[in-house]
Amino acid sequence: MYEAVREFYMKHGFGQRVGFGERPAIVVIDLAKSWLDTDSVIGSDLSKVVENTAKVLSMGREKNVPIFFTTMAYDSEFQEAVGPMSKKLPHIVKGSYLERGSEWIEIDPSLKRRPNEIFIYKQRASAFWGTPFLSYLIARNVDTLLITGCSTSGCIRSTAESAHNENFHTIVVKEAVGDRSALAHECNLTDIDLRFADVTPMEEVIAYLRSR
Amino acid sequence: MYEAVREFYMKHGFGQRVGFGERPAIVVIDLAKSWLDTDSVIGSDLSKVVENTAKVLSMGREKNVPIFFTTMAYDSEFQEAVGPMSKKLPHIVKGSYLERGSEWIEIDPSLKRRPNEIFIYKQRASAFWGTPFLSYLIARNVDTLLITGCSTSGCIRSTAESAHNENFHTIVVKEAVGDRSALAHECNLTDIDLRFADVTPMEEVIAYLRSR
Amino acid sequence: MYEAVREFYMKHGFGQRVGFGERPAIVVIDLAKSWLDTDSVIGSDLSKVVENTAKVLSMGREKNVPIFFTTMAYDSEFQEAVGPMSKKLPHIVKGSYLERGSEWIEIDPSLKRRPNEIFIYKQRASAFWGTPFLSYLIARNVDTLLITGCSTSGCIRSTAESAHNENFHTIVVKEAVGDRSALAHECNLTDIDLRFADVTPMEEVIAYLRSR
Amino acid sequence: MYEAVREFYMKHGFGQRVGFGERPAIVVIDLAKSWLDTDSVIGSDLSKVVENTAKVLSMGREKNVPIFFTTMAYDSEFQEAVGPMSKKLPHIVKGSYLERGSEWIEIDPSLKRRPNEIFIYKQRASAFWGTPFLSYLIARNVDTLLITGCSTSGCIRSTAESAHNENFHTIVVKEAVGDRSALAHECNLTDIDLRFADVTPMEEVIAYLRSR
Repeated sequence: MYEAVREFYMKHGFGQRVGFGERPAIVVIDLAKSWLDTDSVIGSDLSKVVENTAKVLSMGREKNVPIFFTTMAYDSEFQEAVGPMSKKLPHIVKGSYLERGSEWIEIDPSLKRRPNEIFIYKQRASAFWGTPFLSYLIARNVDTLLITGCSTSGCIRSTAESAHNENFHTIVVKEAVGDRSALAHECNLTDIDLRFADVTPMEEVIAYLRSR
Repeated sequence: MYEAVREFYMKHGFGQRVGFGERPAIVVIDLAKSWLDTDSVIGSDLSKVVENTAKVLSMGREKNVPIFFTTMAYDSEFQEAVGPMSKKLPHIVKGSYLERGSEWIEIDPSLKRRPNEIFIYKQRASAFWGTPFLSYLIARNVDTLLITGCSTSGCIRSTAESAHNENFHTIVVKEAVGDRSALAHECNLTDIDLRFADVTPMEEVIAYLRSR
Repeated sequence: MYEAVREFYMKHGFGQRVGFGERPAIVVIDLAKSWLDTDSVIGSDLSKVVENTAKVLSMGREKNVPIFFTTMAYDSEFQEAVGPMSKKLPHIVKGSYLERGSEWIEIDPSLKRRPNEIFIYKQRASAFWGTPFLSYLIARNVDTLLITGCSTSGCIRSTAESAHNENFHTIVVKEAVGDRSALAHECNLTDIDLRFADVTPMEEVIAYLRSR
Repeated sequence: MYEAVREFYMKHGFGQRVGFGERPAIVVIDLAKSWLDTDSVIGSDLSKVVENTAKVLSMGREKNVPIFFTTMAYDSEFQEAVGPMSKKLPHIVKGSYLERGSEWIEIDPSLKRRPNEIFIYKQRASAFWGTPFLSYLIARNVDTLLITGCSTSGCIRSTAESAHNENFHTIVVKEAVGDRSALAHECNLTDIDLRFADVTPMEEVIAYLRSR
């Protein structure tokens, strides 16, 4: 139903294709226990997203594409979360599902992160906010960012916007991103595709990686 | 219908109230001819939004609250728009509705911008991106940002997210923001309220300003 | 001898006083083993700087002023240091004196960091670069940043410049900053005082804190 | 005499060579009337710097290298300069040598800026601070930044540090940068070479451009 927004916005000149560039990297957003285990207040079942991310990573590793992982993390006293930010989002401090050092922020083991794949601790939705992520991409001459993980309406959208802002070819891998709400997923995926990134079928992304 | 997302997300701990702080500022996003005149490819009828913004500004001026305006603007050769960013959003370069110096990026005259109200030229959705805006707020000891203007699904959401990220009390004035699509407006206003800012009735915002 | 630069620059309008603001915070830059122990390639004897920083902290704690510590830190494979940055500064990767988790980046125990005093891991000279530091200051309504630690010609100057850029009252505590080179210390302290921050005697800073 | 600092710092592992990358751009910092005309409070005779910058630009244009210019600029009411920043540097507001629209911030005509060469208005020392400059470089796949202009102890050093921070091959063109103080020039050029950028003879830079 949100497709009406797409049609309307495309008439106004939004939503064209960016396409792939020459030097991709993959970033996996927040596929840690706190988002994947329903015992956590922010958790939901995203097993399909994890599975598909593993497929993208497998081809990326075969082609030596730089790979990055993120989680959110705060100090154990949550001093780093003090302020209006955590008034809006009190789940960050209550219940401690985002405490640095806890198992809740460990990357899902099925993704088999390797020691040379950088693991970024962030404190806001975007992987670029308050982190050195951008400089890691520039160091590797990356011009294309392939985004997987969760949540579509939060960290995926924000990371895609940041990458678009900095002039990367920004690609959100359609079947490898998810949200705890199917409706929020659908609407935000459309907004992302209209404004920031190409929302691209996984098969196409894997073919692009394979061809390198 | 997007209200279902709100209920669902609030169960997961999102969407609490930030409330007003002590030292507000007002930012008016992109209420220039290019967004307000349907002869522009990105224009739509937002006369009610302009009218309500004028009401907020009137009380703000009475109380000597710092006021900021933004527009988007690029050089006349659109070299500043080169890159993946404008591949996704080609309306930025085609048709020249965002050329620096043109009448299309002048603030709506009914808002009566005063010379001491800073006018920020930005090149992305957020008023904070690639501008000194944050330092202007810090110089004035601002802790609360009241946001009006357009578009809800683009520059309003992005500006609200940036202000939230930096730990401002972020308030989106409900009747003083708008979008060319009513559906995109509704969904994004909900996401904003869940994640970044209090979406607050104009009457309440004006009462807050009056009480200062 | 660099005093000639001061006189010359002051004639050109630089180097006026910023003064103290109302709500101070203290940041202690890089007073960890790697900078303080001469067994580390970047280490030198800065015991006086540590001692004076302890005095400033003591008064700051008495007055409940927010306190922050920094160190530099990289992953154990030094993937986070890949790029032109570490070509210029190869000591970052060689010898591993800046490895996350190692004792070399632990804050000097004499400074008695408390668990509620935020400890920031940074990867460049400025405490603001690639970190959420700025948002921690905004959350606490800080308007004045008191800087101590090392090195004057590197991380102190860069942190002072960043704080100045964002419009904080920026104060470098004269006897509580140091450099492995006395000459680099002198010249950079002058440049800092001319361009970014008031270089202020410790006694004056402690009196300011006491009066709060 | 500051050479002693170089020797000392190099023993501690600083000051190695970054070298040229594959895709250069040139940025010309603040070669506008306000810095070049001694009638301005911040002006000095930098005719040799302008002359040498023209030589670098000439070869850069022949090879279609992206070229950027900067100036500092504030609104005519200097609201954009309010705050601790201009308390430290009151010459920014007094005398109005940095007012947007005035002849004082026009690029020196001998540099023959072309309309497709982006002209960036900045409000702090670094060309990256509060501007979209970084995204312009990423859009053009730049990996090497050649820096010319003034002043060595201010905007050149800060711009070099920012470029280094983001992982560019950062090159300061030795004979094409200058400072109103010869001593500040010498000391800061050494610090830059030790910490952020290769300070490289102009002849070598021009040969690099020619070979492309």
